[in-house]
Amino acid sequence: MSWKEVDTPALLLELDAFDRNLKTLSDAVAGSGVILRPHSKTHKSPIVALRQMSLGAVGVCCQKVSEAEAMVNGGVPDVYVSNEVVGESKWTRLAALATRARISVCVDDPLQVQGLNAAAKRFGVILDVLVELNVGADRCGVEPGEPVLRLAEVVAAAPSLRFGGLQAYHGTAQHKRTPAERREAIQQALARIAETRNTLDRRGIACTRITGAGTGTFRLELASGVYNELQAGSYVFMDADYARNLDETGQPVREFEHSLFVYATVMSRPVPQRAILDAGLKALSVDSGMPRVVGLDGVEYVRAADEHGKLELRDASLRLAVGDKLRLIPGHCDPTVNLYDWFVGIRHGIVESLWPITARGAVL
Amino acid sequence: MSWKEVDTPALLLELDAFDRNLKTLSDAVAGSGVILRPHSKTHKSPIVALRQMSLGAVGVCCQKVSEAEAMVNGGVPDVYVSNEVVGESKWTRLAALATRARISVCVDDPLQVQGLNAAAKRFGVILDVLVELNVGADRCGVEPGEPVLRLAEVVAAAPSLRFGGLQAYHGTAQHKRTPAERREAIQQALARIAETRNTLDRRGIACTRITGAGTGTFRLELASGVYNELQAGSYVFMDADYARNLDETGQPVREFEHSLFVYATVMSRPVPQRAILDAGLKALSVDSGMPRVVGLDGVEYVRAADEHGKLELRDASLRLAVGDKLRLIPGHCDPTVNLYDWFVGIRHGIVESLWPITARGAVL
Repeated sequence: MSWKEVDTPALLLELDAFDRNLKTLSDAVAGSGVILRPHSKTHKSPIVALRQMSLGAVGVCCQKVSEAEAMVNGGVPDVYVSNEVVGESKWTRLAALATRARISVCVDDPLQVQGLNAAAKRFGVILDVLVELNVGADRCGVEPGEPVLRLAEVVAAAPSLRFGGLQAYHGTAQHKRTPAERREAIQQALARIAETRNTLDRRGIACTRITGAGTGTFRLELASGVYNELQAGSYVFMDADYARNLDETGQPVREFEHSLFVYATVMSRPVPQRAILDAGLKALSVDSGMPRVVGLDGVEYVRAADEHGKLELRDASLRLAVGDKLRLIPGHCDPTVNLYDWFVGIRHGIVESLWPITARGAVL
Repeated sequence: MSWKEVDTPALLLELDAFDRNLKTLSDAVAGSGVILRPHSKTHKSPIVALRQMSLGAVGVCCQKVSEAEAMVNGGVPDVYVSNEVVGESKWTRLAALATRARISVCVDDPLQVQGLNAAAKRFGVILDVLVELNVGADRCGVEPGEPVLRLAEVVAAAPSLRFGGLQAYHGTAQHKRTPAERREAIQQALARIAETRNTLDRRGIACTRITGAGTGTFRLELASGVYNELQAGSYVFMDADYARNLDETGQPVREFEHSLFVYATVMSRPVPQRAILDAGLKALSVDSGMPRVVGLDGVEYVRAADEHGKLELRDASLRLAVGDKLRLIPGHCDPTVNLYDWFVGIRHGIVESLWPITARGAVL
């Protein structure tokens, strides 16, 4: 079946570009001694995870226990929940999962440590627990130095847990537009890691893993000599927001290709300057800006309603008719993927695969 | 089970408030002779649709053919797709559905008319087709007067279609903040309808249905003497955005109650002024603003990341600990509902029902 026959809205995955993205990151990391553990919150698909592993990834990160379950059930043997887990039900499910796969998780509060330890004890497993360090994004995470030490000691003292190192992901650094801003953010992160590591070293507590990095900054963490595990996720798809990051020459970074598209149909063409697509808020996420229209100069997606996307046409004479189909680059890939049940994989214009988005809606 | 035991993030439905909302709209319309056809794009659940029908609704509207299928399969006998439908596959499915239920649909282009007519012919059904009039929102829809007449004549000439009237929904009017602005918008809509109706009358084409209205303006359409069918949908749940509409006294309109909540857990409490919830972009839609925190003064949800919600606490001494659970009023209910598989219905503090969100993800 030609990809042009796919009904809309649909999530298209250009497999050649996707494969190249996987290889680009894999090649960049190969031989460095740094572990690649891509983030599965982006794709929510064990099929993608296993392809990442076939190119050298050790396993995946995820953000939710239900995502970890989907990954382990799909054959991923090593899953790191790079997020705080809270609540009896989730601690129990995570410990249960550790009877079947290598599981690690991060914490930033003694209550999480207590809950994880009790659950791990019940299942007779040992969990690797990393302390999240606030490297500058001011979201979760303990402040550098003594506060991390205090929590690491709580972890180390818990009989069913093993202190595994530092979660040091800098979220807001990923989308800083200039290389100088990104460098500065990661330098700040490195300074906080160094301070914390010194404090831990003085007490004889080793950091076996220092894990972080995303698609926007991974080369900085890779070159740091400090991070020994990379978590980049969005590189598999790229989105319109990441494509606004600039390189040293002031040009958009083009290290990875757009491989993910929302396929949409022109459902209404009421006046020459306006076209309406069948893809709105339930077909793409606009939290990081509007999607970009592929291959049509002077056509801008200006507003998303629940089921409508409004296009403005600079050139009213543009040939764009009811029934025409367009590809959109989503503003933000992760929450867009979470709206769909399937990736429609295409190569050389042909639909080659349908991959279920197994962890779609897995928020627990 | 107490609702406090529900794991998070979850979509809670306060059934008493929900029931009162259903009754409030039903009572407002009763005896007016105006038909109530609530929009199911809000709830995507045939269970809710059947409850609306038990209080007098004639059936439902929906926006997508796949939603219409979910409604008919769930027992709704009369479904209006209040949206343009484009593409062979969708025309076929809609006509097939018309062999099992009363189906109507709207158009704003001859191509849609042609496709619908051919499909209806193949299935031996007659479809009611309404022409969408641009009443001022400048999205889909034909301009008033002659342009509507021309398309209505195309419909009337199609052997397997019946001209059913005018789709005259004013989307942007719903969220205008003051009553004066909303009145002005609906007056403009009424003027455009009058012009169009006169044009059609002169050719002897009757408008049996004039359908529109939403939660923000329905009393205006109800009182108009022109609209004979109301499509309000969000009234069942209400959201933070609708609650910003003001009444004649300058106070927020409180005609309907908030019945829908995202239930979330404090997963991190890194510094006194900040708390992090486990509900971010994959648990609620932020296109119409951030969610509101229920029952905690001085606590504001300020930023949503994929899986994190950042709260700022004005009063740092506020008791809010890791593991505490909060209710959030979503900024926009429709795309938030579309993220979940279940409504967790609660009454008097007890979980009373789990209703599947059958048409979750039904974008085709």
